[in-house]
Amino acid sequence: MSVPVAIRVIGIGPGGPGHVTFAAAEAMAGVDAFLFLDKGSAKHSLLDARREILDRYAPQGYRMIEIADPPRDRDPDDYATEVRRWHGARASVVERVLLEEVGAGGVAAFLVWGDPALYDSTLRIVEDITGRGVLAPEVTVLPGVTSISALTAAHRIPLNRIGEPIHITTGRLLADTPAGADTNQVVMLDSYLAFRETADPDDHIWWGAYVGTPDEILISGRVADVADRIAETRAKARESTGWLMDVYLLRKESRFAG
Amino acid sequence: MSVPVAIRVIGIGPGGPGHVTFAAAEAMAGVDAFLFLDKGSAKHSLLDARREILDRYAPQGYRMIEIADPPRDRDPDDYATEVRRWHGARASVVERVLLEEVGAGGVAAFLVWGDPALYDSTLRIVEDITGRGVLAPEVTVLPGVTSISALTAAHRIPLNRIGEPIHITTGRLLADTPAGADTNQVVMLDSYLAFRETADPDDHIWWGAYVGTPDEILISGRVADVADRIAETRAKARESTGWLMDVYLLRKESRFAG
Ligand SMILES: C[S@@+](CC[C@H](N)C(=O)[O-])C[C@H]1O[C@@H](n2cnc3c(N)ncnc32)[C@H](O)[C@@H]1O
Ligand SMILES: C[S@@+](CC[C@H](N)C(=O)[O-])C[C@H]1O[C@@H](n2cnc3c(N)ncnc32)[C@H](O)[C@@H]1O
Repeated sequence: MSVPVAIRVIGIGPGGPGHVTFAAAEAMAGVDAFLFLDKGSAKHSLLDARREILDRYAPQGYRMIEIADPPRDRDPDDYATEVRRWHGARASVVERVLLEEVGAGGVAAFLVWGDPALYDSTLRIVEDITGRGVLAPEVTVLPGVTSISALTAAHRIPLNRIGEPIHITTGRLLADTPAGADTNQVVMLDSYLAFRETADPDDHIWWGAYVGTPDEILISGRVADVADRIAETRAKARESTGWLMDVYLLRKESRFAG
Repeated sequence: MSVPVAIRVIGIGPGGPGHVTFAAAEAMAGVDAFLFLDKGSAKHSLLDARREILDRYAPQGYRMIEIADPPRDRDPDDYATEVRRWHGARASVVERVLLEEVGAGGVAAFLVWGDPALYDSTLRIVEDITGRGVLAPEVTVLPGVTSISALTAAHRIPLNRIGEPIHITTGRLLADTPAGADTNQVVMLDSYLAFRETADPDDHIWWGAYVGTPDEILISGRVADVADRIAETRAKARESTGWLMDVYLLRKESRFAG
């Protein structure tokens, strides 16, 4: 018999408490434990941001459990295989916490940065746990504002001109975007500003770090004009805060002026 | 001298009041007039949804101005040119309302479905107005939950498997997506279920109508297995409500099982 447990995967938006939705805030009530999985250098800041959100929306008090991350090879030969192995290890660690600290009939929640569907592994971990069969999770997902929407709102721009598609990709994959899909590209998870290798000098870029938070930094312009400034600003910001979250939109001159 | 006016472009999420963020709700206070631009068969329902949101978050009362839409050619020879012409006409109508009904130093707001950056023309109209020089708008944009996030949350799925890009496009453009960009495709603004012409029978589809509202309908499965059911469900829903909003994610079998 699998152990029943409720799991809420709650999107909290890209930073400040203001980006939380009313439905997400409601879903923070009646939770037995908030599980926290983030890792690495950003850990402290991301944990603080979640505490600020819970202090505001779960004022009746809350229990937060930090789950130690299994070790991970950051530069593996086969990226996908290593990530899968690592997800499996995370699933078994989370499963144990759910069994021991939440228990049958309990309610656990994850507060996910931005929207849970976008470059985040929480839903996959929950799926892995369900697949193991020890627990029978009943899953609810609350959508959140993405860091993409926060970026475009801060720059006050649309993502697309009239009738154009939008391509969302990562720094790692940017060079692989096929011609014809690269009119509007959003780049996430980019540690090296990969656009400096791929963009035309005349492409336009809208870049943002810590978007939607009090530390927000915005730069935009022709790639040739602002690339160096972005690189310097980025390096300085990372040095002074110890971590960085940034995202950008790259746009090609249009065939028509939309 | 241009007339100063504050314009708030507020994303309200994909439907119900629960998807509104706290920042968006705050931005609904102190607004002199909410301008309403939607048109067509969905008008009544979209207006009701906004009223419900304002009743909840602007309980001190509010003023809502419906702006009659200039006529538009829905099947022009040159789509982009006609849309641009039509945006110009809308800008001049909105400009007049801002001048006559909001006035110097006033605050106007638009409640935009989903997120204002995604396939929405409000920001372009505001830009057109600024360009005309009669008004000097001070623009604030509040990001919102997109219908894409509402779709994936309702289906409890991630948008992408590990390390995969995401392509967002329209029904009109779906057939133009280059190979290599079509692993995960989100299709919006599709009146004809264009995937029936483009998808492989083995592709997976997650479809949703009125997502995030009490009328939500969800269907998912192999394209070959569910395409007819989606088409029938869609036709019935449109007939009974008189309008339809639907969005879907199409996914190709992966090169690796993510
Ligand atoms: C693991 S992904 C998670 C994305 C998140 N689920 C979302 O909806 O935005 C992390 C990436 O999101 C982007 N990101 C998240 N929050 C951000 C913020 N506040 N400012 C800038 N970029 C952000 C960065 O590109 C970062 O590398
Ligand atoms: C003009 S676009 C606006 C998109 C919106 N700005 C957003 O962020 O989702 C309208 C399209 O959005 C999608 N859409 C918006 N709301 C939806 C909902 N509640 N359910 C399903 N699709 C929706 C449909 O594809 C529709 O054709």
